[in-house]
Order: sequence, then structure tokens, then C-alpha cells
Amino acid sequence: MDEHDDAAPACDTAITLAFSVLGKRWNGMILSVLGSGVTSFVGLRKAVSGISDTVLAERLLELTDTGLVTRAVADGPPVTVRYELTVAGAELVPTISQLGLWATRHLAPQ
Amino acid sequence: MDEHDDAAPACDTAITLAFSVLGKRWNGMILSVLGSGVTSFVGLRKAVSGISDTVLAERLLELTDTGLVTRAVADGPPVTVRYELTVAGAELVPTISQLGLWATRHLAPQ
Repeated sequence: MDEHDDAAPACDTAITLAFSVLGKRWNGMILSVLGSGVTSFVGLRKAVSGISDTVLAERLLELTDTGLVTRAVADGPPVTVRYELTVAGAELVPTISQLGLWATRHLAPQ
Repeated sequence: MDEHDDAAPACDTAITLAFSVLGKRWNGMILSVLGSGVTSFVGLRKAVSGISDTVLAERLLELTDTGLVTRAVADGPPVTVRYELTVAGAELVPTISQLGLWATRHLAPQ
């Protein structure tokens, strides 16, 4: 028990908000891969090793709802669907790169 | 199907590594709260709204194993246990703060 800690404020709202997106498995990787220029569902699935079709589709829908990704359908044939970062999504990419630099310095590969 | 995307490289190893920690629910918040100076289990549980004792204990153990957190036991009575960021953990805090700034600009509170 610690008086100081008991009076601790809740975790910063903005941090909580950030990790409501990034603390969900795969989201950071999906945003990073989109930032690297991959835009098709198949391309994303290949780049994000281990993700299933179902989960990728679910995450892309959530990221679209959150305003970080857009889904553009181009008339065919063949009809093509492209996923791209919005401005909000793109503005996250440099910080995600910093997380990568940090990981390279401090986390041993599993 | 897209030739370019099919040849897309896998998600950057460093990014994958970073999100092996941060893409796990609560971890970003726990590290952020530790960075703000809260060090007791009770203080952490209060600051990270919604986390259970069991999950907090599990996450602290994992973060300790990953080398981002240390657990220090001081002789009593009463015996006190403190969790603190390691250098590696502390070096993540500024980037987490940037994620918070980004969230403030771009994510609507749920």
C-alpha cells in the first residue's frame, strides 16, 4: 500500500486512446505495412505474417471505422480493392518507425 | 491480385518485434503509467482502468522477462514491492507520449 500511488491519476486519456487501437494485436503491423505502400488484401495478408483472412478483414474494417484506413473500390473488370492510410493513419507511421528503432536497440528477437 | 503486392516484403522485423510487446492489450498503458512514477501494484491497478489483478500480475511478469520492467523487493516490515522501468523501458516513454499526442489529434474518444 502506498499513499502516493493510491492517489495516482488514471493513465493519460490520450495514451489509453492510442492503445485502444495499437494495443490490439496486428493493428500496428497492418498500419506499418500500409505505410510501406502495400495496398491489396492479398499483399497485406502476405506481409503480416501469421494473420488469417478473417482477422485481417475484421481489423481493416475496424481501422476504416476508426478513420485510419480507407477502402477504395475501382471499377473493373477486374474490380480492384485498395486499402490506403488516411492522413490520420499516415501521421502515425513515423512514430511506428521509432518504435521499430527502439525494438532493434532493446528487444531480443524471440 | 497484384504482382507488386504479392512481392511485398514481410512486415519489418523491428516493427513486428515492437508490437510483440505493445500490440498486447494493457502493455502500453502499464509502461506509460510506470513512466509517470507509479510503482506499486495497487497504484498500477488503479491507474490502468479496467485491468484485473490477475492480468496485471501476468503482464508485469512478462514485461520483467522482456527486460522492460524490474521488480524490487525492499525488506520490511512491511515488505514493499516496487515495479520500475529499466533503461530499455524508460527509453520507450517519449515515443509512447508521441502516440498520445497523435491520438489526441486524430482519434475521437470512444
